[in-house]
Amino acid sequence: MSSLHFTAESSSNGMLERDFSVGDVPGVLWSPVSGTAHHLPLILMGHGGGNHKKHPAMAGRAQRLVTGCGFHVAVIDAPGHGDRPRTAHDEQEIAELFRARAAGEPEGPIVVRYNAYLADLAVPEWQATLDALQKLPEVGTTGPVGYFGLNMGTAIGVPLVAIEPRITAAVFGQHWPDALVEKAKRITIPIEFDLQWDDEHIPREAGLALFNAFASKEKTLHANAGRHKELPRFEVDSAVRFFARHFGRALTSPPA
Amino acid sequence: MSSLHFTAESSSNGMLERDFSVGDVPGVLWSPVSGTAHHLPLILMGHGGGNHKKHPAMAGRAQRLVTGCGFHVAVIDAPGHGDRPRTAHDEQEIAELFRARAAGEPEGPIVVRYNAYLADLAVPEWQATLDALQKLPEVGTTGPVGYFGLNMGTAIGVPLVAIEPRITAAVFGQHWPDALVEKAKRITIPIEFDLQWDDEHIPREAGLALFNAFASKEKTLHANAGRHKELPRFEVDSAVRFFARHFGRALTSPPA
Repeated sequence: MSSLHFTAESSSNGMLERDFSVGDVPGVLWSPVSGTAHHLPLILMGHGGGNHKKHPAMAGRAQRLVTGCGFHVAVIDAPGHGDRPRTAHDEQEIAELFRARAAGEPEGPIVVRYNAYLADLAVPEWQATLDALQKLPEVGTTGPVGYFGLNMGTAIGVPLVAIEPRITAAVFGQHWPDALVEKAKRITIPIEFDLQWDDEHIPREAGLALFNAFASKEKTLHANAGRHKELPRFEVDSAVRFFARHFGRALTSPPA
Repeated sequence: MSSLHFTAESSSNGMLERDFSVGDVPGVLWSPVSGTAHHLPLILMGHGGGNHKKHPAMAGRAQRLVTGCGFHVAVIDAPGHGDRPRTAHDEQEIAELFRARAAGEPEGPIVVRYNAYLADLAVPEWQATLDALQKLPEVGTTGPVGYFGLNMGTAIGVPLVAIEPRITAAVFGQHWPDALVEKAKRITIPIEFDLQWDDEHIPREAGLALFNAFASKEKTLHANAGRHKELPRFEVDSAVRFFARHFGRALTSPPA
């Protein structure tokens, strides 16, 4: 089993940022700078397709979770993303996606297939990363663990959460049901799920079908008017409050 | 045009409570006790069927809006509700509802029909109440006005908001589309809409159809797992934040 190695460290805006690797998977752990407290809640975040672990969307969400709630946040680069090499298969699927996009053909079949392939690789990587993170004294094994990932972060997160009992609350959204429904049916933890009511890629009925599949007794759908990339910024605040509610920490600063 | 007469006044927990009447319609106005500031935002709240203006759900929501956001909140008794007399028609419809319920028949057709009848009476009452409230110096005509009502509060609120340009943000939910879709299509203000995913009275497709009908560029559906009466309490916090976001006031205390 691979252990975790820190490779860089910096801090700004009340947040400690430490790059790490577990085996050949690079990641980042964001923590409160003042946080010598042990066993803080840990949120695993999955980035979107074509993005990477330190994309501004990830850093922005981490800032709210770390300084707003006192949580740890960890992100790893998905296979073929960020600091990781692309294989010939990655290049082929990305070329196929760009070709379909340029031709005005539906992206869904390619995204669904490629993300399912990446999820098969990423799920064991996430489990090894969580094993290694929980060996850190400031994380430990007794604090709760959440998962927050939309788009490709959902394609990887749903299979992960379906088999990972350490994760006890999750925010998902914006993906197709095809490869995920059977796994979602095994998930019973509290879920918040985002979809765009006028998504030009994911048909409304498809998004609703994925939400419907979760077996969770507590699940909330947030559907907003707008196209795929128009998810309102206030949904990030809502996701942060969702984790704060479940992991028992009041926000230390009110939402704007 | 009827003016507003205050009939009782008390205060507790940082909230001033003043009973009033406009013509023969009784209402309550909740305000910040420290509030000598003029032109605070005003939220009109519609109560549910069989309830009344001071039902604990109304007082609880008012507490959050008044002490959390510094808003005024006004509720009036709907026709046949609270301190208002029931007509023979009210008695007949209520008896029919109880009969259907006892027989295990669908409540929808009766609720839809009866609430539409009440809305025809209540909409001009709300407009006269808003006219009278805006003549109070502490309310005035320059502060924004919102509407918050679920169940029967939506059956009355959708026709009201469809014709009342002074209302610029609204929270609705938990009703059938039958009598409301055409009016919802005329509404373009920001909307938050609650529905229960497993509602035993309102079919899922019917609730989604009503949400879909709003012409608002900004509209958000919050659909929660659970039956009709199991709407989670955190949706009240969400509604409060919705008004705080649109009416430009930060919450003075963080949500729990």
